[in-house]
Amino acid sequence: MTLKVGVLGYRFMGKAHANAMARLPMFFPDAPEVERHVLVGRDEDALADAADRLGFENTATDWEDVVGEVDAFYNLGPNHVHADPAVAALEAGTPVLSEKPLANDLESAERMAEAAESAGVPTATAFNYRFVPALRYAKNLVEDGEIGEIRHFRGQYLQDWLVDPEAPWSWRNSEEMAGSGALGDLGAHTIDLARFLVGDVERVSGHLRTFVDERPVEGENETRPVTVDDAYSAQAELEGGAMATFEASRFADGHKNDHTIEIHGSEGSLRFSLERLNELEVLREGNRGYETILVTDEDDPYLDHWWPPGHVLGWEHTFVHENYEFLSAVDSAASESSGSGGGDYRPDFEDGLAVQRVLAAIQESDERGEWVSVA
Amino acid sequence: MTLKVGVLGYRFMGKAHANAMARLPMFFPDAPEVERHVLVGRDEDALADAADRLGFENTATDWEDVVGEVDAFYNLGPNHVHADPAVAALEAGTPVLSEKPLANDLESAERMAEAAESAGVPTATAFNYRFVPALRYAKNLVEDGEIGEIRHFRGQYLQDWLVDPEAPWSWRNSEEMAGSGALGDLGAHTIDLARFLVGDVERVSGHLRTFVDERPVEGENETRPVTVDDAYSAQAELEGGAMATFEASRFADGHKNDHTIEIHGSEGSLRFSLERLNELEVLREGNRGYETILVTDEDDPYLDHWWPPGHVLGWEHTFVHENYEFLSAVDSAASESSGSGGGDYRPDFEDGLAVQRVLAAIQESDERGEWVSVA
Amino acid sequence: MTLKVGVLGYRFMGKAHANAMARLPMFFPDAPEVERHVLVGRDEDALADAADRLGFENTATDWEDVVGEVDAFYNLGPNHVHADPAVAALEAGTPVLSEKPLANDLESAERMAEAAESAGVPTATAFNYRFVPALRYAKNLVEDGEIGEIRHFRGQYLQDWLVDPEAPWSWRNSEEMAGSGALGDLGAHTIDLARFLVGDVERVSGHLRTFVDERPVEGENETRPVTVDDAYSAQAELEGGAMATFEASRFADGHKNDHTIEIHGSEGSLRFSLERLNELEVLREGNRGYETILVTDEDDPYLDHWWPPGHVLGWEHTFVHENYEFLSAVDSAASESSGSGGGDYRPDFEDGLAVQRVLAAIQESDERGEWVSVA
Amino acid sequence: MTLKVGVLGYRFMGKAHANAMARLPMFFPDAPEVERHVLVGRDEDALADAADRLGFENTATDWEDVVGEVDAFYNLGPNHVHADPAVAALEAGTPVLSEKPLANDLESAERMAEAAESAGVPTATAFNYRFVPALRYAKNLVEDGEIGEIRHFRGQYLQDWLVDPEAPWSWRNSEEMAGSGALGDLGAHTIDLARFLVGDVERVSGHLRTFVDERPVEGENETRPVTVDDAYSAQAELEGGAMATFEASRFADGHKNDHTIEIHGSEGSLRFSLERLNELEVLREGNRGYETILVTDEDDPYLDHWWPPGHVLGWEHTFVHENYEFLSAVDSAASESSGSGGGDYRPDFEDGLAVQRVLAAIQESDERGEWVSVA
Repeated sequence: MTLKVGVLGYRFMGKAHANAMARLPMFFPDAPEVERHVLVGRDEDALADAADRLGFENTATDWEDVVGEVDAFYNLGPNHVHADPAVAALEAGTPVLSEKPLANDLESAERMAEAAESAGVPTATAFNYRFVPALRYAKNLVEDGEIGEIRHFRGQYLQDWLVDPEAPWSWRNSEEMAGSGALGDLGAHTIDLARFLVGDVERVSGHLRTFVDERPVEGENETRPVTVDDAYSAQAELEGGAMATFEASRFADGHKNDHTIEIHGSEGSLRFSLERLNELEVLREGNRGYETILVTDEDDPYLDHWWPPGHVLGWEHTFVHENYEFLSAVDSAASESSGSGGGDYRPDFEDGLAVQRVLAAIQESDERGEWVSVA
Repeated sequence: MTLKVGVLGYRFMGKAHANAMARLPMFFPDAPEVERHVLVGRDEDALADAADRLGFENTATDWEDVVGEVDAFYNLGPNHVHADPAVAALEAGTPVLSEKPLANDLESAERMAEAAESAGVPTATAFNYRFVPALRYAKNLVEDGEIGEIRHFRGQYLQDWLVDPEAPWSWRNSEEMAGSGALGDLGAHTIDLARFLVGDVERVSGHLRTFVDERPVEGENETRPVTVDDAYSAQAELEGGAMATFEASRFADGHKNDHTIEIHGSEGSLRFSLERLNELEVLREGNRGYETILVTDEDDPYLDHWWPPGHVLGWEHTFVHENYEFLSAVDSAASESSGSGGGDYRPDFEDGLAVQRVLAAIQESDERGEWVSVA
Repeated sequence: MTLKVGVLGYRFMGKAHANAMARLPMFFPDAPEVERHVLVGRDEDALADAADRLGFENTATDWEDVVGEVDAFYNLGPNHVHADPAVAALEAGTPVLSEKPLANDLESAERMAEAAESAGVPTATAFNYRFVPALRYAKNLVEDGEIGEIRHFRGQYLQDWLVDPEAPWSWRNSEEMAGSGALGDLGAHTIDLARFLVGDVERVSGHLRTFVDERPVEGENETRPVTVDDAYSAQAELEGGAMATFEASRFADGHKNDHTIEIHGSEGSLRFSLERLNELEVLREGNRGYETILVTDEDDPYLDHWWPPGHVLGWEHTFVHENYEFLSAVDSAASESSGSGGGDYRPDFEDGLAVQRVLAAIQESDERGEWVSVA
Repeated sequence: MTLKVGVLGYRFMGKAHANAMARLPMFFPDAPEVERHVLVGRDEDALADAADRLGFENTATDWEDVVGEVDAFYNLGPNHVHADPAVAALEAGTPVLSEKPLANDLESAERMAEAAESAGVPTATAFNYRFVPALRYAKNLVEDGEIGEIRHFRGQYLQDWLVDPEAPWSWRNSEEMAGSGALGDLGAHTIDLARFLVGDVERVSGHLRTFVDERPVEGENETRPVTVDDAYSAQAELEGGAMATFEASRFADGHKNDHTIEIHGSEGSLRFSLERLNELEVLREGNRGYETILVTDEDDPYLDHWWPPGHVLGWEHTFVHENYEFLSAVDSAASESSGSGGGDYRPDFEDGLAVQRVLAAIQESDERGEWVSVA
């Protein structure tokens, strides 16, 4: 059976997922066959162009026509259009992958997670960094107890594309469309990795800041208000007792896409930086210092599919792994008796909702000036 | 005139300052002449030994006999014995250098700062990292506007000497003696550098944790309670609008004395790590990435006193610079008309008090679970 | 017009080039249309499998049937089978891409370069590292005079897959098949980059070593002799007066695919490491230290085709760039009046021959124990 | 007994050794008592000044008056004045420490080594980098077999103080006074470390270059010829079968005092850089990557004398360790029956001569264009 995939969104994320699907046959021969069936968007010319370039068979301008007709629906649009198409797809029994954060507000995220639970089909919140081989290797170390009891988690996600006050306004600067700024866009990844590597976030203290209040609209003689945070920080307590600090900024001069994770446990420590995504720094018992491991050996996660040791992977490979796992789950659910196969893929909508709860708690904490428990 | 210095404390800090004084004549020929006049301690045998090794002319077991008889008094004892000798010395008109944090509680620190103000003589809170050449170079960059308006300050001070739950109890684990744990011992340095490089801390949200509640007493068959934090984190707002995060731990496996400072501004960024203290990473306007500067050139701060470029300095050199500056201020105050010369040396007791207010606010914030303004 | 490509070889390099061709339409829409037309190999079962996985329309077991029937012929076999198929293809007027080194001996390389010159069609020696964006950026800096007059070139290519004396014998250990060992396999890349970034190699002093003389044959109860070098080093003088040192090893424990290049000029310096292939370290005039540049901005070489800044590329992307350039040259030559369009693509067979001359001179120097001029 | 030390030379090296001696009592209480007895130089005013600053009791303008009157004689002058005073001292039975390289030519070095052997007293060639704790730790790893059989040694010593063609002429640019340039000044250190860590150098192929032929004399309207190398490289074979490459330059833009050592063995690898002298990178069996070890723990070489873990040492500390070891050897030889105690201290004049033989062989190899065996 060939899985027909419908995709809403054809810009950055559309290209990343289309490329991932295109690469499966050569590198993951046991992946299900996938047809990039239909690409959904509003601007017909741009859409036709994109469908041609990204290898889609068909286009559609209305997602309502699509969500019930495909084997999997990818929602890659802005945050405020995540909920309705996803819920409609799920109500039609269609598995859904949604870009992160799951929604622009907690209520929408809850609605999506409920729909997922009712549907009993695979869902994905596209936290692609869980599929970085070095982080999956880190996860294995943690699970094997090599780091011991975890005391500290520290995650920073630094970008600098808004340092210039004249950088143009985009939907990512709008609370209505994005929900939040650096917090939801970048912090959601960090919080998901904290949950992946350590455990749930129990309570938080948050701090949000907007440094530049309005920005010019590209090609127009006006400005629009920035209604989201340019940067956030948070302190947290994690399940199991670890302290955590989270931070993200779009004002960190010199940092393009610099997501770093550091963990200290009773037996060892870990460090990771997305800009050197093939490397994991590990302090293990018996060693004195951090060991810089190039996670490209044949028995490293996913690496047997690619190149010999030392032939490094790039950012986009995380999407290939993510698509491989999600589409395999979709395929396997479809071939099982109906309704029983939705639970395997992670991170799913439930994970997306859990992150959304932390995002909401951080915002609430910032507003109230006090610690907030995550429901 | 030869300055007679009296020193209370002859362990780690006593050695660091005695060494610093001993090295002045060869490397800072314009420093005042200094006599290590008297070493103060309670254990007469250990004291005699230390005085011999550290080059002191005399010993005394009671600081009250000393504080009025010397040209400068160094208080290097545990935090809870900072206040009384310092105040007594200042009341006798003797300049005082105190190890950091200034005191074990805010009230004592205030008493010390008031005494300093009344005395009108030079005082020092021994935040020696202000005297790292790379950080002084950083300060110059900030003052020259090379980093622009500062948006983010991030400071972490990581050690690992308490990871082992069997590591022995010391006065540093006692609230009564130390005031706080990682917060006061390590965080005080971070907060001082935030003030030095950016500006005052205006409000904070703090988080303190004790991971191990009691520890064995060395050589005895008992344990004592740990009544201070093993680790802390804090969020802050700084004068001028920067966001800040502070963090320190004695549970960061693999980190011995790893104090890192990161700053992002509208025109550039800075990074520093104490374990590579000769280096400063600078992102400047016109450049795309961080430039790793080895701050050992002849025209770098203090470097003309030492060795040719590339011949790196160590941790202890910060004490030589600190002693040079403080003793020069003492000498210069002594030769001016009385009472007029106390204001030049920084960081002084006022700076120590400012840091103590932040420490207290972080503790209060942790207790109350909400943001606290620094008085 | 769709270019029909025939490819000899379906293992590591076959996969790398097939993937590169497959990715052109999505990322390089102005590339010519390409059909993976025919895959050539001897083992019919493995071949059919590979053709299926790598997306080839047809298979063939004899290259002689193929070389005249395709628009471009890729020779990706072991070094000793580079010459005959390439020459046959060129005699048929077919453009050829050959894996590196160009041949297993100088005589074959000369024959290939002569055939290329007679044919007047595009040829390529597959030195893919010329297509690393960071190295192309480095090349631009050198050409713009930002590094000044070059004094030093230093290139090391370190691997460790033969450290274990029980690692199995392969054709790469046979002089007859490979020509040389670390020298031709790894050193050829280094020498090509020296030529690319600085200039021709004028004279050399070489040193070759075989640490383990025979190795077990996998799955058989016998050993075969290792007749090539496990490691080499060389000193050289380059066109324009720079000193150079080259080195490669298959015995460098802990290094998987670690190709580093360092250049010092009168105005600046450069450093590159293949295991961090998105980064270039640059010392520029006006700066004091190396600046770590993440070469992923939109206006960096080839980067406008991929992802936003900071979303790093991997090793395989160099093959996409290489195929894009070579196939564009093939397409453009085909559409010009016949015979006139062969000269544009670099590195071509003439470049491959130039490297081969250096390889031969290093071997000769090692044998004679003296410096050897490169003819 | 207090050792009276006479020192010829009061500039850079004079200051480094005077400081080292001054610091012994506080940090190495078991070191012999040392008196900085007499400082020797020609310019009486500068000499008096230096003696005052560096803590010498007396001055002398003629070394002949000194060499027989002291318990140890330090020859820190330019290379061409190493031999005569050293030989005279040894003939008087006085232990001698000589700065490196041992002499400006092989004949003088041989004369010095012969005198040392006849005298039977301790001698030192001041290869201070053997006393870097991280390198001593490396030596222990090698001796314990942790790195296995050594295959590769790579040493580079990069400086940039001659990049500017207008940088002034000094005695270090004169063959008559210095013997050689980068080779003897910097390469001697590298070669000594190869001998220390691996074994003797058996044969070499050398390459020397002078990039700028004459330089201005400071404060005068003339230039003088540069008669030594600005940079050298060498290939070598070491005792036990390792391949080696050595390189040094005074034209490596951006490098101040960057001495790096890399070793690959059958069981592991090591990396060291002088600009981060507290760190050693170690690849050990059982690990996958290099471990960055901060060599500052209490049980690391010499570290129990200094500060707690993580409180880094500087370049000058190597001289303290060197003086401690040499003066202890002098003291112990003096207290034994005469003539029997000279053999313990290393690196001695015999080691200095061994390095000088390699320097001479590299120069000869460069002249003859062929490999040269080290006698």
